[in-house]
Amino acid sequence: MNTTDIIAAIATPPGEGGVGIVRISGSPSTSLRTGDVWKIADQIFQGSERPSLAKGGTFLHGRVVDAKGSQIDDALCLIFRAPHSYTGEDTVEIQGHGGAVVLKKILRRALEAGARMAEPGEFTKRAFLNGKMDLVQAEAVADLIHARSDRAAQAAFEQLEGSLSGQFNTLTDGLIDIAADLETTLDFVEDELPDEVFPTLGKKLGESFQTLENLLGTWDEGRLLREGARVVIMGRPNAGKSTLFNALLGSDRAIVTNIAGTTRDIIEEGLVLDGIPLRILDTAGLREAECEIEREGIRRAREHSAAADIAIYLIDSSQPVSDEDEEHLQKLDSSRTLVVLNKNDLKHETFDFRLSTFDSLETSLLSEGGVSELRSAISEKLGGVSNTPAHAVISERHRDLLVAARGELSAACEKLSGKEDETIALTAEHLRSALEQLGQVTGRTYHDELLDNIFSRFCIGK
Amino acid sequence: MNTTDIIAAIATPPGEGGVGIVRISGSPSTSLRTGDVWKIADQIFQGSERPSLAKGGTFLHGRVVDAKGSQIDDALCLIFRAPHSYTGEDTVEIQGHGGAVVLKKILRRALEAGARMAEPGEFTKRAFLNGKMDLVQAEAVADLIHARSDRAAQAAFEQLEGSLSGQFNTLTDGLIDIAADLETTLDFVEDELPDEVFPTLGKKLGESFQTLENLLGTWDEGRLLREGARVVIMGRPNAGKSTLFNALLGSDRAIVTNIAGTTRDIIEEGLVLDGIPLRILDTAGLREAECEIEREGIRRAREHSAAADIAIYLIDSSQPVSDEDEEHLQKLDSSRTLVVLNKNDLKHETFDFRLSTFDSLETSLLSEGGVSELRSAISEKLGGVSNTPAHAVISERHRDLLVAARGELSAACEKLSGKEDETIALTAEHLRSALEQLGQVTGRTYHDELLDNIFSRFCIGK
Repeated sequence: MNTTDIIAAIATPPGEGGVGIVRISGSPSTSLRTGDVWKIADQIFQGSERPSLAKGGTFLHGRVVDAKGSQIDDALCLIFRAPHSYTGEDTVEIQGHGGAVVLKKILRRALEAGARMAEPGEFTKRAFLNGKMDLVQAEAVADLIHARSDRAAQAAFEQLEGSLSGQFNTLTDGLIDIAADLETTLDFVEDELPDEVFPTLGKKLGESFQTLENLLGTWDEGRLLREGARVVIMGRPNAGKSTLFNALLGSDRAIVTNIAGTTRDIIEEGLVLDGIPLRILDTAGLREAECEIEREGIRRAREHSAAADIAIYLIDSSQPVSDEDEEHLQKLDSSRTLVVLNKNDLKHETFDFRLSTFDSLETSLLSEGGVSELRSAISEKLGGVSNTPAHAVISERHRDLLVAARGELSAACEKLSGKEDETIALTAEHLRSALEQLGQVTGRTYHDELLDNIFSRFCIGK
Repeated sequence: MNTTDIIAAIATPPGEGGVGIVRISGSPSTSLRTGDVWKIADQIFQGSERPSLAKGGTFLHGRVVDAKGSQIDDALCLIFRAPHSYTGEDTVEIQGHGGAVVLKKILRRALEAGARMAEPGEFTKRAFLNGKMDLVQAEAVADLIHARSDRAAQAAFEQLEGSLSGQFNTLTDGLIDIAADLETTLDFVEDELPDEVFPTLGKKLGESFQTLENLLGTWDEGRLLREGARVVIMGRPNAGKSTLFNALLGSDRAIVTNIAGTTRDIIEEGLVLDGIPLRILDTAGLREAECEIEREGIRRAREHSAAADIAIYLIDSSQPVSDEDEEHLQKLDSSRTLVVLNKNDLKHETFDFRLSTFDSLETSLLSEGGVSELRSAISEKLGGVSNTPAHAVISERHRDLLVAARGELSAACEKLSGKEDETIALTAEHLRSALEQLGQVTGRTYHDELLDNIFSRFCIGK
């Protein structure tokens, strides 16, 4: 990605709304190559004043026009003069009507006039390259946008504001101090070194190690916030899976009949439960299906259950528990499974639930009995989310780097007990590696591939 | 709806994007009741300057804060001073990150601070009430946002810019002239009237009638632009409907097998073909199903085909045409039906297509043969759209009022030939009725129910 191009993209969500925005951004220094943002804005926008002459922090009323002067839309044009913009570059935002087609027409005009289509996350990438934010904050922008619950949004905003960056910076600064002290010891003859030097360094290193451990400890609590939880409804045919799915959603989404094998395509819908975003999946009933379509449905069901945070295994309790149920349940992790005994109003007299290692509850879905208890049970099973600290490590990338850094710090601690010049050099080496890993978290050190990885998960227009 | 309240809503499309906007608007005169827009903006936004002190046409960088001063999001605050805003009132737009949750948090803050949730279309309704646009233009705003093709967007924008309003105004002004002339004749004794008065009035009335007829004539061409076309794929089980559906979409949306009765739930996807937006529906195969689920699917298929612009009836041409096919086809309107003979590579030797009143073409969907021809045939069948004039009548509401006005004008023409005072009075009465109908089109005359009807089809935030 050339960082001197002028880039443009629709910055508002796709779909229909009152207004939408096309953002155009470019470095002031590009003027010699392709003209600059202002030249493009002057071409495509006609208002009370020319955008190129307008002051930063103001907006103009006017219209977007095509190359022949025909009007495309009524619009506002917001003027951002570098460095007072999101990217730190010169930027204009054209705010038109919020229809997908009309926004595409405006975007097309910007491209015709010399901008190129922005890559996903490219505006934020430029903000990073121009020192507007570090990588941890840049990633928080995507998290904030993708947040599906209040709690996740709050956590992402705190990360955007620097709470997590602060933790990393403290850790990094501490390690840089230790590394500097360590280098200094090389200037001394061994006997001349004050006795307390190595114990002090060891203590400092131990503290840094503990800080890192604490950060890693926040990982498990933080993950659900960003990714949401996948809840897969499983069970034998005709246990009432689609009825349960509809009841949880409070809608009539899936076709329900009393015939085994009704559902084939995976049906997926979203729901927020106690501030935790869920994706609920209804699946084909598990049986040895003769029908090819149903077999495909069952294959997809198994595939999805493997990636689920919670499997709800539904059993028809008007029937004796079958060996098949037991077989299916044995393949599931009891800590991630909720057994629901449905049709408890028709409960089989000899009903005998043989797999008592599973959490279970009873429902009577035909009369919507037990649905709110089930919601509570799901929420409890997901637990712990409310206690997530502001600086929780939510990103897998951060965790992987922290784990690598922990390995290096651990090795450094071991070597430090040696005190010989050679082991001091090795300790310093491990410290440098740890710093290299931590530097990649915030972007103190980075390479192109790292940036590509990070920004490819952004939406276009951010 | 109280027009003195301060209203607020998310104005960008729902979903995820780079940025999103919460719009807050209120009349300057509300300041005595609930405070004004500026008081709310000052409470929820902290920037380089207080919104209440900022100049119209500028925007501030800052943050949205909750009642306790905790920060919710980084944001811009755009300042619109009445009447220089969309609504004509004082307005602020808070531009934050484009996530659904974070925008809801910002909106909640605005509501806590004294705004109320805007009704659908309420911002545009206020624009109408404040004389910023007439009803035809207001409706065009919704059309522009909902437009699913370039052509529809262009037509809607032209309507927003007043091309259709101009037609209505010309028609209305002409009729007002005629009505005035007619009233004048009542002041004369019959003998004193110049001979040419009634023929002249009749000629003028005839011209107005023709203008109205021409406007009505644009209806058929315009409708598809706004509503898009519904294309339903029908046929007996296993004819290849889901394969055709996937081929038209170029994706693997529906499960396909060689087993009759695979599809049950209606599957619907959008597509734009030659600038015309389509909704394509895949349906359950038509047969006397024993299975209850399938019967429900077939019932839904029939229901959807009744409302379709085009039915694609798919026949497996490797089989002799069955009586069943013939029976199903006889229920379809041949002008709206395309018969597709699939599996032409396996064509049955004695294949005999007995219903030659239908347009038909052959495909070989397994090898994607004939798909582009089918696209062309659909596009041709929908035809005429490209010739839609800029001032086409697209709205059913406009058409109904025009039809009513035509009835009144027709009656007026008839009465005018009478010349007696009484018939003049009756002519004038019909003219007034016609003007009343036309007035409701642009909103020269309106009542609350009319406005409620119009603006309820808007999205919230516009």
